[in-house]
Amino acid sequence: MRFLDIIEKKKNKLALTDEEIQFWIDGVTDGSIPDYQTSSLLMAIVLNGMDERETAKLAEAMMNSGDVIDLSEIEGIKADKHSTGGVGDKTSLALGAMVAACGLKVAKMSGRGLGHTGGTLDKLESIEGFNIFLTEEQFKKQVNEVGLSIIGQTGELVPADKKLYALRDVTATVNSIPLIASSIMSKKLASGSNTILLDVKYGEGAFMQTIEDAKKLATAMISIGNRLGRNTMAMITDMNQPLGNTIGNALEVEEAIQTVQGNGPKDFTELCMCAGEIMLMQGKIANSKEEARKMLKEAILSGKAFEKLLQMVEAQGGNIEQIKNTKLLPQSKFVTEMKSKESGYVENIHSMQLGILAMHLGAGRATKEDSINYAVGVKMNAKKGDKVNIGDVLCTVYHDEELKPEWIDNFYKTFTYSDSKVDPIPIVEEILG
Amino acid sequence: MRFLDIIEKKKNKLALTDEEIQFWIDGVTDGSIPDYQTSSLLMAIVLNGMDERETAKLAEAMMNSGDVIDLSEIEGIKADKHSTGGVGDKTSLALGAMVAACGLKVAKMSGRGLGHTGGTLDKLESIEGFNIFLTEEQFKKQVNEVGLSIIGQTGELVPADKKLYALRDVTATVNSIPLIASSIMSKKLASGSNTILLDVKYGEGAFMQTIEDAKKLATAMISIGNRLGRNTMAMITDMNQPLGNTIGNALEVEEAIQTVQGNGPKDFTELCMCAGEIMLMQGKIANSKEEARKMLKEAILSGKAFEKLLQMVEAQGGNIEQIKNTKLLPQSKFVTEMKSKESGYVENIHSMQLGILAMHLGAGRATKEDSINYAVGVKMNAKKGDKVNIGDVLCTVYHDEELKPEWIDNFYKTFTYSDSKVDPIPIVEEILG
Repeated sequence: MRFLDIIEKKKNKLALTDEEIQFWIDGVTDGSIPDYQTSSLLMAIVLNGMDERETAKLAEAMMNSGDVIDLSEIEGIKADKHSTGGVGDKTSLALGAMVAACGLKVAKMSGRGLGHTGGTLDKLESIEGFNIFLTEEQFKKQVNEVGLSIIGQTGELVPADKKLYALRDVTATVNSIPLIASSIMSKKLASGSNTILLDVKYGEGAFMQTIEDAKKLATAMISIGNRLGRNTMAMITDMNQPLGNTIGNALEVEEAIQTVQGNGPKDFTELCMCAGEIMLMQGKIANSKEEARKMLKEAILSGKAFEKLLQMVEAQGGNIEQIKNTKLLPQSKFVTEMKSKESGYVENIHSMQLGILAMHLGAGRATKEDSINYAVGVKMNAKKGDKVNIGDVLCTVYHDEELKPEWIDNFYKTFTYSDSKVDPIPIVEEILG
Repeated sequence: MRFLDIIEKKKNKLALTDEEIQFWIDGVTDGSIPDYQTSSLLMAIVLNGMDERETAKLAEAMMNSGDVIDLSEIEGIKADKHSTGGVGDKTSLALGAMVAACGLKVAKMSGRGLGHTGGTLDKLESIEGFNIFLTEEQFKKQVNEVGLSIIGQTGELVPADKKLYALRDVTATVNSIPLIASSIMSKKLASGSNTILLDVKYGEGAFMQTIEDAKKLATAMISIGNRLGRNTMAMITDMNQPLGNTIGNALEVEEAIQTVQGNGPKDFTELCMCAGEIMLMQGKIANSKEEARKMLKEAILSGKAFEKLLQMVEAQGGNIEQIKNTKLLPQSKFVTEMKSKESGYVENIHSMQLGILAMHLGAGRATKEDSINYAVGVKMNAKKGDKVNIGDVLCTVYHDEELKPEWIDNFYKTFTYSDSKVDPIPIVEEILG
């Protein structure tokens, strides 16, 4: 088999065989195929596409390029959930605790944030002592005993994806449904859970700008999961404004805690309930959405969901006093209220701009090497559809250094207004799978 | 300027600016743009194309990546001619002598053969002592005094094209009209002549398989030449059978000599006459095709064309006795006649197969490192349209080692027959420019 012939085939819009895709990924993993050949094939894939079989095979070959976690010694159905990333997305924290409180086994590997989107690991690390570096054995033991663990990648998962992603990043070959779908799914497959719920966000703050593209990505990922024997579902959710009311690590932990206690913001609570319904049904804990929602409500009202969150934090060495009393979480030096200079109904909140503002404050990373300030961030006092008058607080900025004038300017630019009433968009647009 | 943005633009099917193309070629030349980025852009160009302005700018930027020959100190219009390569193509030798005998200044840099196609330099080197390595000064002096010189590349011409071509060869990005056209033309432009005649071959033994593709390539090259101030014309010529009656270095030199003496094969003579007409008009030596053809015939009949060939060979240190008496050219040990096993009209001669057979005999190179046996090759005794009977000689093989049975098998497969008369294809299909 010659790699040149494989590039030639894809250039001519032909489907690659399983053997050809395996040959490629083997060559990427062991370094025998040079980057300049892979980047040529990547561009051909971006422009000529891949069918469902090819995409699933690519995900499978990448999964098998490194360690594959075996969760079979954990009893029951192991559930995973993945978000394509957004602004203010603290879902894993609250949702994990809620569904685990209903008896589901949640074994989740998360990532760090980059650019305008946050990462679950960074949020968890705003809790003093919280250890995201469990061994595979510790991870399994905790999922078995507590029912919930969220950690960073253990072992060497999908090295082929790491190499491919680094190359895609510098060759303008990031935006391709088959490449994105197989990249995400290879990691989900390698982390070993039986069921996968995908939260595919669309909108200005999301990787996919339109509902249509989000659906295409979701459909591609569901196809991969199902072809490889995982029960895979997807939600298409709105990222045209920040999720919930907070952006920033400790602020989001606090909001997740409030949510598992039944005091969370409406949109974020609804997202967690919808996701929880699907996960409990995937995990055969509930037989219908109605039953699942009842269980989730009960878990919140009874305090079991909060209790589960405490158990996870304790098991991973985190300071549970900070969970019990969120005032003990990192606090910023300064708090500045941003007051509206206009009146009207909030029509749009540019979530990407707000994410970038939070990053500038120190809540996120401009580059992978940057460190994070857990205390800083933004709390929304108005969201889409709200009526505001001049002088009303739009949001509250938590910061440690003086706000630069251009940040303040940019901040005001993130809000646009309408004279007439604005209908809020449902947080969950559609469920696929 | 970021190279990533340039790839992104071409991926999105947008035209690159002149500055962007210059930035790319500068980066290729000085090595600052890594191969994996260039190969991604190359594939985007293969699939999304380039417009005429982009293609001309690419050729210009490549031309300026290295030395550019200045022929201005040679009096008059300097003419160049380029063939896209074929089987049995000894045109430069005969045509050069014919038009130089009419007063045109021919300053030609040629290449070596690879695979099934031969190279003019190899043919010239079958003449004892012939020196293709003139300095730029020697080259100019000879063109000024003799009116004709054919040499290998002098100086460092188009290093960017060398690098790009090496990369295209291993990334399945060879077949692209803008890339092929700019590659060929960058070398023609850098070698400094005022007029360029392109012999774009189509058919089974040619780079372009169909007339349509050959015309597209010719049109793209003419556009580049004219945009950069060179009078550029093109002939679309047939390569569905070998050109003339010989394949192999010394055999082709002999045939070129016969042709400048008026005893060449009909198709090859006609190709030279058509090309000569165009070149003499481009060089303002003749005002009409008719006048040009008259001059060419006169040059042949008077012996001036043969005299010009002798002058060039002598000026470049070649043994002119071999030109005067071709029996002194390298001779093969064995001569084997291939006799037809069928009868009928020759319908097709697979020129690529015959070219490969000649390569196996030693007349060509399978890889760049191979050496050449100047004596061996094939002489055609029948061509397309000829009536042959069983036992008639189809062609004569000149060889130094025993013919392998599979070569003989393959040889017979190159001929196909028809019961009814076969109309020969005109050698020159169309003239463009």
